[in-house]
Amino acid sequence: MNAPTSHDHLVPVISQRDIPPAFVEALKSRFAANCSTAQVVREQHGRDESAFTEVPPPVAVVFAENTQDVADAVALAAQYRVPVIPFGIGSSLEGHLLAVQGGISIDVSRMKKVLSINADDLTVTVQAGVTRKQLNEEIKSTGLFFPIDPGADATIGGMSATRASGTNAVRYGTMRENVLALEVVTSNGQVIRTGTRAKKSSAGYDLTRLMVGSEGTLGVITEITLRLYPLPEAVLAAVCSFPSIEAAVRTTITMIQIGVPIARVELIDANAVRMVNAHSKLELAESPMLLMEFHGSPNGVKEQAETVQEIANDNGGQSFEWATTPEERTRLWTARHNAYFAGIQSRPGCRAISTDTCVPISRLADCLLDSVAEADASGIPYFLVGHVGDGNFHFGYLIDPNNAAERETAETLNHKLVQRALSLEGTCTGEHGIGLHKIDFLVTEAGEGAVDMMRTIKRALDPDNIMNPGKIFSY
Amino acid sequence: MNAPTSHDHLVPVISQRDIPPAFVEALKSRFAANCSTAQVVREQHGRDESAFTEVPPPVAVVFAENTQDVADAVALAAQYRVPVIPFGIGSSLEGHLLAVQGGISIDVSRMKKVLSINADDLTVTVQAGVTRKQLNEEIKSTGLFFPIDPGADATIGGMSATRASGTNAVRYGTMRENVLALEVVTSNGQVIRTGTRAKKSSAGYDLTRLMVGSEGTLGVITEITLRLYPLPEAVLAAVCSFPSIEAAVRTTITMIQIGVPIARVELIDANAVRMVNAHSKLELAESPMLLMEFHGSPNGVKEQAETVQEIANDNGGQSFEWATTPEERTRLWTARHNAYFAGIQSRPGCRAISTDTCVPISRLADCLLDSVAEADASGIPYFLVGHVGDGNFHFGYLIDPNNAAERETAETLNHKLVQRALSLEGTCTGEHGIGLHKIDFLVTEAGEGAVDMMRTIKRALDPDNIMNPGKIFSY
Repeated sequence: MNAPTSHDHLVPVISQRDIPPAFVEALKSRFAANCSTAQVVREQHGRDESAFTEVPPPVAVVFAENTQDVADAVALAAQYRVPVIPFGIGSSLEGHLLAVQGGISIDVSRMKKVLSINADDLTVTVQAGVTRKQLNEEIKSTGLFFPIDPGADATIGGMSATRASGTNAVRYGTMRENVLALEVVTSNGQVIRTGTRAKKSSAGYDLTRLMVGSEGTLGVITEITLRLYPLPEAVLAAVCSFPSIEAAVRTTITMIQIGVPIARVELIDANAVRMVNAHSKLELAESPMLLMEFHGSPNGVKEQAETVQEIANDNGGQSFEWATTPEERTRLWTARHNAYFAGIQSRPGCRAISTDTCVPISRLADCLLDSVAEADASGIPYFLVGHVGDGNFHFGYLIDPNNAAERETAETLNHKLVQRALSLEGTCTGEHGIGLHKIDFLVTEAGEGAVDMMRTIKRALDPDNIMNPGKIFSY
Repeated sequence: MNAPTSHDHLVPVISQRDIPPAFVEALKSRFAANCSTAQVVREQHGRDESAFTEVPPPVAVVFAENTQDVADAVALAAQYRVPVIPFGIGSSLEGHLLAVQGGISIDVSRMKKVLSINADDLTVTVQAGVTRKQLNEEIKSTGLFFPIDPGADATIGGMSATRASGTNAVRYGTMRENVLALEVVTSNGQVIRTGTRAKKSSAGYDLTRLMVGSEGTLGVITEITLRLYPLPEAVLAAVCSFPSIEAAVRTTITMIQIGVPIARVELIDANAVRMVNAHSKLELAESPMLLMEFHGSPNGVKEQAETVQEIANDNGGQSFEWATTPEERTRLWTARHNAYFAGIQSRPGCRAISTDTCVPISRLADCLLDSVAEADASGIPYFLVGHVGDGNFHFGYLIDPNNAAERETAETLNHKLVQRALSLEGTCTGEHGIGLHKIDFLVTEAGEGAVDMMRTIKRALDPDNIMNPGKIFSY
């Protein structure tokens, strides 16, 4: 097999395990046409949006149509000690889907049923393959919505597994706060439920929160019960340009510190604005900007917006513009959600190395500004977007994947940024997960003792290490 | 030893382990005057607010003054395989503090330092022995507050360990949502940190949420980093009496379902009002009432309150009264927080068996009204209070602890209530924890598979079962 060409801290531990032919036969016998070993299908399931490109694909892909399918596939894999990698839509940025130790992919994208909408309780239960846009479409008539919105139209299963968030997290929280309960297939193929539909509970260990963010290493998530929110009575969106990134960041810090319950506040740097303009046919002013949204009663959003406009003015904010129609709002937010793809498109053939640090809001300027200076000095094309209200932002370093020097430079930038974030009491990943890319960062961040505790849990719940092995920990 | 006299599902599994004399000697040698074996001290640490009274006290009490003390005590206990029970202020309602397998109590109440206030980030880090009132007193000058408020003035360590909540949870969440990170002493005496001060993170397993609610069975919590909130610009409190519990519950369900961001909405039944009036020298109308509070901007709270007043009127709510001064508000909420003690006081010598079910809001009336009828029919004196906005409520059955028939009747009421809550997709405990009392309920609620997973984690992280053994699971 080909080893990745990049430098050390990028190399996932790759030890392809032997897959017994009898296992693949058993899988085909159980799943017939829903088990594929076609090269094109395997390759499609053996990559994601990460910058890793050199890992062999899984030996087979099972298309699960229900929980029993997942349970049977995992039970067979357990019997033959074969790795199992859950697959949603393939939008991971951290190599979660790569078969670094071989094994099979369990594709849950056909598990697309919204199982029960409990509008009166503001909850919904869905299968793991439902995507966030599909969900919001299917519950539209209830007057409720689900706020968590990573850039891609990811599956709810994948979003749960990576503890995803997005632009609304500053007000509505992340998957951590919004998953009420899960159905999970454990490493021996057993099906468990991790909670009820009660809004709060003190009933034993919080298995829901343990599974959320476990990246497929403790079990395969098959059903998810989520919290929903009433669509706000009034929504106001605004764009404001700033003379510098610092001015935009200072504005954000102040509004959070005084407690404005803003629903979204996104930083987009001048590079990202340029890329988004080209990709989404917009004509936004090519300077750092904040893209904001306020949710509440008509009076409430007006109050919030006036407060923020005043803070922006104090920081030199220019041309505070309102998006008054739903169409305008949708156009702006679609552009924001496409920023990652706009970035990729701006340099044909490139891959993005995406950073994901998150720091306490008071440290945001310290963390961001030095990193911008370093990125500018590096000569690597990049864009910068951020859920700055949460202290979370992403550089996308746009590298030529065949250029080892560029990869090295980008990784060095990332490394410096993470060290800076950790020294400021932050985390290496706000919402993308550890995957393959941040295994060493996790140890630096959490300490050997805490990572040992995680590993002990992993070994106890998955003694043969078949659940997405090689992610989070390199063993 | 004396076995509890109550019927089967009440009896904790009690197997007092042998404590080697050398262990107690080692403890005394390390802790000198901070290790007590005096009977009165041991007895004080061998009981809590639960209805269990017949368990022998711990063999010794260590008064820890810092994390190192806790680590050293646990390391010694690990060496001699002696059970360790963390102790805050002793306000558990579920027998968490009882030495059912013997062992020592580690009292953290002297660890009372607020270690760092990061007002700009809305976070604070405290030692485990800081109480909720002390915390709010110490951060008063920052304009911030910590909202979680169980009835007792509990320690932040204890509140974390039981995943506590209280009257503000309907708006601000529970300890699950408000603990950002912990310092924990593990079963071998190692000190780990479970997170950073970043508002969100996807960095590996969520050890913070695993420890929150683990009831001392996975480690001893020594430091806690919490989220804080800006004191609301405007606060409005109101009391409204209703012709029936049902009318009060219907009012609550509607306000939650339409998304009023109410900060507090507490149900107090006529029994509880009578007891509170007697205890707190108040003259509230002795009918079911809702005690409410609205937080926000001056306009915002006015809007919210008008909406709720309209809903209450539709349901026959009478005499909607405003508490306009901070003093009036404090008096009302203090009365509410003392409801439990008011109940106890209403029947000298009694113990309360406290229920803690929590159901989805749409099921609240179904769950509550039948249980009220059953309680009325039983002849056992009781009070009913509830964080009804969360679907969580507590009956306090006031029994004579020496009257086996009364205990049996109360337990039967509780049993029926829990079965009802589970059949309505709720939980047996919203905020008190499993402790000794709900071990069987947990299995019914979560299922054998999920409880097995919890037990597997427990065994992996505490192989000698020394961390508060016999709680959550009966082994």
